[in-house]
Amino acid sequence: MLSRPLGDYLIALRAATPLVHCITNYVAMNSTANLLLATGASPAMLHAQEEVAEFTAISGALSINIGTLSSPWADAMVIAARTAQQNNIPWVLDPVAVGATTFRQRLCKTLLTYQPSVIRGNASEIQALNGLASLGRGVDATTSSQEATTAAIALAQQHRCVVAVTGETDVITDGTHHYRLKGGHPLMPRVTTLGCGLSALVASFVAANHEQPLEASLAALACFSIAGSRAGKQAQGPGSFQVALLDTLYQLTPDDLSTFAQLEAVHAV
Amino acid sequence: MLSRPLGDYLIALRAATPLVHCITNYVAMNSTANLLLATGASPAMLHAQEEVAEFTAISGALSINIGTLSSPWADAMVIAARTAQQNNIPWVLDPVAVGATTFRQRLCKTLLTYQPSVIRGNASEIQALNGLASLGRGVDATTSSQEATTAAIALAQQHRCVVAVTGETDVITDGTHHYRLKGGHPLMPRVTTLGCGLSALVASFVAANHEQPLEASLAALACFSIAGSRAGKQAQGPGSFQVALLDTLYQLTPDDLSTFAQLEAVHAV
Amino acid sequence: MLSRPLGDYLIALRAATPLVHCITNYVAMNSTANLLLATGASPAMLHAQEEVAEFTAISGALSINIGTLSSPWADAMVIAARTAQQNNIPWVLDPVAVGATTFRQRLCKTLLTYQPSVIRGNASEIQALNGLASLGRGVDATTSSQEATTAAIALAQQHRCVVAVTGETDVITDGTHHYRLKGGHPLMPRVTTLGCGLSALVASFVAANHEQPLEASLAALACFSIAGSRAGKQAQGPGSFQVALLDTLYQLTPDDLSTFAQLEAVHAV
Repeated sequence: MLSRPLGDYLIALRAATPLVHCITNYVAMNSTANLLLATGASPAMLHAQEEVAEFTAISGALSINIGTLSSPWADAMVIAARTAQQNNIPWVLDPVAVGATTFRQRLCKTLLTYQPSVIRGNASEIQALNGLASLGRGVDATTSSQEATTAAIALAQQHRCVVAVTGETDVITDGTHHYRLKGGHPLMPRVTTLGCGLSALVASFVAANHEQPLEASLAALACFSIAGSRAGKQAQGPGSFQVALLDTLYQLTPDDLSTFAQLEAVHAV
Repeated sequence: MLSRPLGDYLIALRAATPLVHCITNYVAMNSTANLLLATGASPAMLHAQEEVAEFTAISGALSINIGTLSSPWADAMVIAARTAQQNNIPWVLDPVAVGATTFRQRLCKTLLTYQPSVIRGNASEIQALNGLASLGRGVDATTSSQEATTAAIALAQQHRCVVAVTGETDVITDGTHHYRLKGGHPLMPRVTTLGCGLSALVASFVAANHEQPLEASLAALACFSIAGSRAGKQAQGPGSFQVALLDTLYQLTPDDLSTFAQLEAVHAV
Repeated sequence: MLSRPLGDYLIALRAATPLVHCITNYVAMNSTANLLLATGASPAMLHAQEEVAEFTAISGALSINIGTLSSPWADAMVIAARTAQQNNIPWVLDPVAVGATTFRQRLCKTLLTYQPSVIRGNASEIQALNGLASLGRGVDATTSSQEATTAAIALAQQHRCVVAVTGETDVITDGTHHYRLKGGHPLMPRVTTLGCGLSALVASFVAANHEQPLEASLAALACFSIAGSRAGKQAQGPGSFQVALLDTLYQLTPDDLSTFAQLEAVHAV
């Protein structure tokens, strides 16, 4: 089903420790950096228009998350995305709450012209991005991943990229191949910015595995679902869950990834 | 003494999972989001002048904290507070370190004209806000909650709002009814931004209980004091305290709240 | 070897609980505040040009970290550094990723004219700051502390300040006296912004021990290396490490510091 065992992508990540340029929201910065360091990547957060192009150009991948957006940041995101495209550096778009305001919709339209390698969002964000009527009221998903599958495939085909819709069941597609991934834990939505961190982890895996963005994205999502499931078993609540998630990501082995990912190819969509 | 058991306010919060628009400081964003998610609300952080009005208008409540203030953020706070007032959306003001600089004093004066539903601060902030000589040297309280009671009542009467002064003993008043709340733990001041998070939790409770801002605020403060006291018993220091606080807020039941809040009405002030 | 036992500096810190004005990056703000509170200082984060001078002037020390730099922040850093110099308030410079972009190099050159009391960085940052060819590719160290010793001494002599190069082995010098400090734990680089927090902790110790910036810096670094080593023994990974580090810093006694610091004077450099 896959060209290589999923664990190979984790081996490649840890061998490369890719430098990942993250332009992300204020809420997610610290937790994103820690999720990447725990798994094996090397995050760097910077956003000034004076330096983003210079820095994106030396990075292994770029991750853009529009969470706590403002005009100067939007301008920097555009510069960074353009630089990534010009330099063949893979980049990931996380269109947080794109359905909520016109400011976000305008920016996402512009960013999509720079051809992201991967788009990761929840179901309502992916639907909003695809121009369907958004049911989203903000940062949380209000439609199921399955309902967003059609939107994901359309988006992947239109922009020739990987689209990952995460939720109770994740849906991942490059427009041709489609997968479903289960796992995770009910405590995950009770911890802030895990999805934002996952987008940057996808960027990390794609940085270390350029030629296979779909399977690299699957590997990133599988890390989260396996580690999340294990962390949930140790946790008393969202506080201890966060701690355990970083520990389990750090302890995760390539074999774990190849063996325990609850992945299935979807033949009929 | 109260119109309903305190636990009823937690039941209402968890049933509504209100969307709470938080414009807060950089230090507090992540921990505030996690405190709200653990207890049962749905936080969203955004601050761009291009979108705050649009977003405040669809939120259940607004929480403004002036911690890491700058001019563009101050402008956004004013837009959001005005939007909240115009749409009858409850909003909470947390006047961090208002005694420390004239920049903060000017902004707070403006914000007060948009009639906050609740003001939460430490004793020196409440005194400074009331125009009394500030003894505050920065972000920490340097006067006791009791000493600030007079200022709190004056402020509540002048602005027709609830004022909560938190510290070793909390003082809560709407200008007519006055309460004292005990509990918590000595480790709480050793963890950053718990007070900031509490302000947003007050906003969450008021969002779910519009008609009773005083008792809803009491319920939010009681969550913190009961969970803080329990977390303190499990903790070895401020690191494990933070983790335990999120877990205990998540585990807190309405019965806990009704039974264990160390609340007393104050008849003579 | 030292003028006083290292523990005396911790006693002084906890007696003074100095107010430390931190202008630091978004990633580090929360963890820095918690590291300072756990150890015994009182952090305050603010950065608006409208108020930094007013606030630096009432602080015990200033800590500037250029991590997530932008133009308005750069301007505020210059105002704050100038205010610190004019008021004889000690200040610490953390030149994050100074080798990576010209924007950072220009700012650091300006900041150095305001005479920092201490500069703390990793080996590649200290080399870049000293004008040597930078081997740094971003925020992580890619040369060893030992290789940066020459750069550190040159920098200390030129700017008449303390320079601390942290890594597996720390190197600390005031241009005349040179020390090496061992300890810590391999998990430390897997947790984000510990170095940023350490810079602010150095500022805290210097605030409480003005007259001895070299030994005060040593005390701050020794806190981290001893607490880090202890936390590592309790941790299952970077999540539990962070929690344990805050707890062990909180529990650390002056005797621990005097007894367990793996410090050696370096006679020939």
